[in-house]
Amino acid sequence: MSNLDNHLQSQRQQYEDDLCELLRIPSVSTDSRHKADVERAAHWVADQFQQLRFETEIIPTQGHPLVYAQSPPRPGRPVVLVYGHYDVQPPDPLGEWISPPFEPTRRDGNLYARGATDDKGQMLTHVKSAQAWIESQGELPVQIKYLIEGEEEVGSANLHHYLDDPAAAEKLACDIVVVSDSSQFARGKPAITYGLRGLAYFEVVLQGPRQDLHSGVFGGAVTNPALALCRMMAALIDDRGRVTIPGFYDGVDPLPDDERDQLASLQYSEDDLKRQLDVDALSGEEGFSALERRWVRPTYDINGLTSGYQGEGAKTVLPARASAKFSFRLVPRQDPARIAASLREMLTRLCPPGIRMELREMSHAPGIVIPRESPFVAAARRAITKGFDREPVMIREGGSIPIVGHFAERLGVDTLLLGWGLDDDNTHSPNEKFSLEDYHRGIRSSAWLWDEISRIGNIA
Amino acid sequence: MSNLDNHLQSQRQQYEDDLCELLRIPSVSTDSRHKADVERAAHWVADQFQQLRFETEIIPTQGHPLVYAQSPPRPGRPVVLVYGHYDVQPPDPLGEWISPPFEPTRRDGNLYARGATDDKGQMLTHVKSAQAWIESQGELPVQIKYLIEGEEEVGSANLHHYLDDPAAAEKLACDIVVVSDSSQFARGKPAITYGLRGLAYFEVVLQGPRQDLHSGVFGGAVTNPALALCRMMAALIDDRGRVTIPGFYDGVDPLPDDERDQLASLQYSEDDLKRQLDVDALSGEEGFSALERRWVRPTYDINGLTSGYQGEGAKTVLPARASAKFSFRLVPRQDPARIAASLREMLTRLCPPGIRMELREMSHAPGIVIPRESPFVAAARRAITKGFDREPVMIREGGSIPIVGHFAERLGVDTLLLGWGLDDDNTHSPNEKFSLEDYHRGIRSSAWLWDEISRIGNIA
Repeated sequence: MSNLDNHLQSQRQQYEDDLCELLRIPSVSTDSRHKADVERAAHWVADQFQQLRFETEIIPTQGHPLVYAQSPPRPGRPVVLVYGHYDVQPPDPLGEWISPPFEPTRRDGNLYARGATDDKGQMLTHVKSAQAWIESQGELPVQIKYLIEGEEEVGSANLHHYLDDPAAAEKLACDIVVVSDSSQFARGKPAITYGLRGLAYFEVVLQGPRQDLHSGVFGGAVTNPALALCRMMAALIDDRGRVTIPGFYDGVDPLPDDERDQLASLQYSEDDLKRQLDVDALSGEEGFSALERRWVRPTYDINGLTSGYQGEGAKTVLPARASAKFSFRLVPRQDPARIAASLREMLTRLCPPGIRMELREMSHAPGIVIPRESPFVAAARRAITKGFDREPVMIREGGSIPIVGHFAERLGVDTLLLGWGLDDDNTHSPNEKFSLEDYHRGIRSSAWLWDEISRIGNIA
Repeated sequence: MSNLDNHLQSQRQQYEDDLCELLRIPSVSTDSRHKADVERAAHWVADQFQQLRFETEIIPTQGHPLVYAQSPPRPGRPVVLVYGHYDVQPPDPLGEWISPPFEPTRRDGNLYARGATDDKGQMLTHVKSAQAWIESQGELPVQIKYLIEGEEEVGSANLHHYLDDPAAAEKLACDIVVVSDSSQFARGKPAITYGLRGLAYFEVVLQGPRQDLHSGVFGGAVTNPALALCRMMAALIDDRGRVTIPGFYDGVDPLPDDERDQLASLQYSEDDLKRQLDVDALSGEEGFSALERRWVRPTYDINGLTSGYQGEGAKTVLPARASAKFSFRLVPRQDPARIAASLREMLTRLCPPGIRMELREMSHAPGIVIPRESPFVAAARRAITKGFDREPVMIREGGSIPIVGHFAERLGVDTLLLGWGLDDDNTHSPNEKFSLEDYHRGIRSSAWLWDEISRIGNIA
């Protein structure tokens, strides 16, 4: 297989040029003025697959289209689904870009452009790796299905809708999903992300009197919605940093010793984090390290508070309303629906006389963890070791990627999250970049991943 | 003295015309485009006093001028200081006025115009009553000093500043202050307000991380300022509605039985209040009625909350900052400065690791109560009984009028708060009005007040 490696080496310039071509298309999905550009990006991606003679289609949706493609079947071998997105965040604030966001520019070994890492560059590694197989070996060792969407930056509603169709689930049937849309653990520390937290997001609105009142004239006799809100929000957590909603911790497994050891081995510096965030102390649930609190423990955060007078100076108002947006990060086996029901019951009980409460469930996603002992994880570990010339570390992520839960639910499969990016890639910010070296390492890891997965055999 | 009454009767039209003249001047103190109008109103008021041959001056300030006037000394008789204001609130929203705000219009026995009740009409009752004495009796039975300001609607900062000058205190030396800038207890229930609550207003700002963070990536390990705020604000009150700040209730006297009986005798309907405010229940400190909670008990209210994402939908942000505006209504003998110090100590103790707290003291005013057995209260009671043909009720007010505290502090005197207005006069709102009947009853009560006070004798 040395000709695969040689081929990858010989095509570096071409792969970079191709990425630059895609990066020049300002496929900003949230901005209707870029609708034609988003369409153009979809066609560019579809064209890549057509050149490889993959069965390719552009699937229209209520919004931006999905691009679907599949390589020829390889009976007896696992089927892989690659998910990615060709849309990008808006480039604002434009004035802060050193080079224009849609003119990809090389500097210090990086390629600067909106979408360089999120997700055009990372997504393309899995296309270029397939191209390398076909050009150097004549065929892929596994069947790969590609689902590349154009609405990841605006919530993927149409993709979720599409996945609800049983025909889509049949078409996308696979043994494993591969996604590269995240980061290495640190510079020079490639990672396999084997867990994501889930999310249950709520908004509570407390309505007191019909309108804002004079706090002198009425204060003391009328329930203050802002104070009621603070008391209710405060009651959801105790002094040990534990959420007090009945049943909240049902399904939360204690952290196995070997996983705790593995997290500790990452040599994560809490002092560095404090410096980075400019806080004098971290906090959280008693008995856990900062990394454990971020990755493997459920949380409760208030995301927003609104009530009464928020301008300059003082206004003696007793507000008519108060509201909070708040959310829980969940770990696998916590049930968002049961937690929502228990929360509703608790808040209803806590809501004082004189207040009408409305609790809105905004969104929820289950926590995800894939078995570290999965043969696909082992395959990814070997592939990355070859691609990056070093062993990847095993990490979890505190955030949620709802599509991963959807794949688990609709397709019944795990997702390998293989981030080629870096923490400081300025995702969603000015001067987004992607290390060109990591781009090529990603392509190489991906190319080897197809080989490693092909050796697993048919696991169906 | 029947000729005084006859004279008042004969001048009704003239008094109304004079009020209309003043109401036509749009003396909106907060709007610099009306600076000349405010000045014109000051001169109009000064001119009233000059016509009565009172010593009159227009005292310039950093803002709008004060009008000062005094009638001739009456040795051996009490000296009265009348305080009022000639400035008005802006008339917005203009579209909601039935008749234009600065074209006084009679409808249903009321005079509609901005400033009709607040405070041009009420203030003028004490000028017209003096005029009636002079025109019908040749002189006033007491010396009256008038201090009419033009910045009440913008906080009276320059008046407070003026009062700090010992020379001003000497000039304003008096035995009692009279203010008509409030309301009767209810239609047909004129009132003497013998107590006001004080105020201690704060803003607390909690700073967590340098900038807003992703609540998935960092949530659980980083102290959430919004949650810290809720917990701190909630900790300031207990389940019985009692403020938990150490020493908060120092100086709060138990409600005397006779005063409790007197408040109960007002036949105040809590059901009416619930209907008016559209709430299903009232609340507050255990062991007190709604009226007691509004008038004679200290309170804690949150006036505003701000943190994180307040727009539509969900944003998974861990806010960098959270802030609250909150205030305490105080009763006499509570010390705002000691409470502020105790609050600061308590919040500092409650502030969790990872948060920097800033506590701002926005404003404070002591609670005020004048002895119900004061001879001036008795005089006012008799005067109002004659002016309104019914006994006034004795009430307190939940709000604060800082100038009353200032008069007590600088001049060492009590203030009689004699409101001729009604609750539904649309003060600060479109279609402000003043009952013409109440205007004349106010003038009549005021005229009799000078007589009643003159009989008290020199109390110095």
